[in-house]
Amino acid sequence: MAVYTEVADEELFAFVAGYDIGDVLSFKGIAEGVENTNYFLHTTAGNYILTLYEKRVHEEDLPFFVRLMEHLAARGVTCPQPVRDRAGEALGRLAGRPAAIVTFLEGLSIRRPGPRHCGALGETLARLHEAGRDFPMRRPNALSLAGWPPLFAAAKARADEVSPGLASRVRDELAFLAAHWPDALPEGVIHADLFTDNVFFIGETVSGVIDFYFACTDFLAYDLAICLNAWCFESDGSFNVTKARAMLSGYERVRRLEDVEVAALPILCRGSALRFMLTRLVDWLNVPHGALVRPKDPLEYDRKLGFHRRAASARDYGLSR
Amino acid sequence: MAVYTEVADEELFAFVAGYDIGDVLSFKGIAEGVENTNYFLHTTAGNYILTLYEKRVHEEDLPFFVRLMEHLAARGVTCPQPVRDRAGEALGRLAGRPAAIVTFLEGLSIRRPGPRHCGALGETLARLHEAGRDFPMRRPNALSLAGWPPLFAAAKARADEVSPGLASRVRDELAFLAAHWPDALPEGVIHADLFTDNVFFIGETVSGVIDFYFACTDFLAYDLAICLNAWCFESDGSFNVTKARAMLSGYERVRRLEDVEVAALPILCRGSALRFMLTRLVDWLNVPHGALVRPKDPLEYDRKLGFHRRAASARDYGLSR
Repeated sequence: MAVYTEVADEELFAFVAGYDIGDVLSFKGIAEGVENTNYFLHTTAGNYILTLYEKRVHEEDLPFFVRLMEHLAARGVTCPQPVRDRAGEALGRLAGRPAAIVTFLEGLSIRRPGPRHCGALGETLARLHEAGRDFPMRRPNALSLAGWPPLFAAAKARADEVSPGLASRVRDELAFLAAHWPDALPEGVIHADLFTDNVFFIGETVSGVIDFYFACTDFLAYDLAICLNAWCFESDGSFNVTKARAMLSGYERVRRLEDVEVAALPILCRGSALRFMLTRLVDWLNVPHGALVRPKDPLEYDRKLGFHRRAASARDYGLSR
Repeated sequence: MAVYTEVADEELFAFVAGYDIGDVLSFKGIAEGVENTNYFLHTTAGNYILTLYEKRVHEEDLPFFVRLMEHLAARGVTCPQPVRDRAGEALGRLAGRPAAIVTFLEGLSIRRPGPRHCGALGETLARLHEAGRDFPMRRPNALSLAGWPPLFAAAKARADEVSPGLASRVRDELAFLAAHWPDALPEGVIHADLFTDNVFFIGETVSGVIDFYFACTDFLAYDLAICLNAWCFESDGSFNVTKARAMLSGYERVRRLEDVEVAALPILCRGSALRFMLTRLVDWLNVPHGALVRPKDPLEYDRKLGFHRRAASARDYGLSR
């Protein structure tokens, strides 16, 4: 949610001149996306977003993200469309960073989604999964089972500063997940970061999905678990099963979950809650001096984990089978 | 340059429904303005900026700023136009803060202005001064001569931490300015913060002026001194007299400076350099924990002050009389 990189005027004009999108009329840094710098770019040809990829995005992954957005959009999932420059390239360089211009999507992210938003999100997520089925590239999920122990190693010495007993809770959780994590569920492209900031609505209709910079190849139902965590808890920590039921029903209107996925739902929710707890914990303990972004509370996900540990089956998430 | 206040969806929709500007299509926090929170608001009726006034703007001053923008725009100075709600009010409340919707201006702020930009800026500044002549409201400048000693009092104990000898340099400067500050120069509405961020260009033409939240009633030539400081020094600290000459010529194409103003130019430059040095120094020494904005370097203005101390007359700024 910050502008990390300033762009000099001459550089901007030279960069935009490489595209067939007219002349620059307006250029404003926007508070969108946590990892990258985003500018709203208005030209005589229309509205765009110019993204500068900051260091947390690996340059070698960019072709995966860019081609995925093109692939999904071609199959009816509204997401930013990379604009190709006059040489046919979707990725350029600006201010010393990889950069892309993408189409501007209308709509706003809903900070407090209701059940109808959750239903629409479930449907959109399933469409995204279906549209990604024939995407030919693969990118392993660096933030799944094998990625969690290194995150914990980076944080465990100071975890109890954040909450007493946190280190031992995480140790137990990691052991449980290592022993019980499913090894065969339907796989495909997942968004892997579909928080409310990354979904635009007009009214109660999804108008677009953004920020594909965690997208990877993993269990489809893991994506749903991420969304249950991100969308269905109230700010007081309680789980809103009406929203969860709406989300799962929305999903199943487009793609019916297999029995193995239904059975795995509670553990996938535990894993995804731990994933966000750990990355937030590492960020929390390593806020750089002069940081432009306030770190998010890792304990929010510690509390969500508590809920999932007590869940016996997918019925606790509102699924009736 | 930050979003200080988040707006809940329901509050946003309710607020916008009070205006005749259609339905919300997009709403994004933008990195524009240092003091307030600004959102880019796109509706079925067009593009707008929604501003939430944060605590550094005094609520009782808002009618001055809002009416000034209307007054100037009616006289051909392109600046954001406050949109009145269905009840005819230009100021409302949103998320617990005073708030206004203003029209969106095309153009971009030029980070490294050239002489032509400086010339265009000078002309625009003079037009602004002329257009403000019959503005009926007054607002004293809290950051002129009488406002500097309290700022220094808040910073002097720790000023030498920032640069050895700074406290004594400021003390001498304050004494000099108190003894020599002019007491009768042409007065009127001044912008008082016309840094490059606050002026939009399309090509080399000024397309608009924004951020009137320091505007006040003071010496017109003091505004010019602020602009000389903000636009005519290079990043290595050197003074670019070509840019200054272009700015002053541009100004005089619209409004000729009186002899008393020409004579006062060096001291007005000293005063305005000290003003920005002091406010930056106070901010520098009081960065709150978790600040979203990096403080600006006060020593940049200490160095500029050194240049102005050595200036003998307006000729040092490129004026030929």
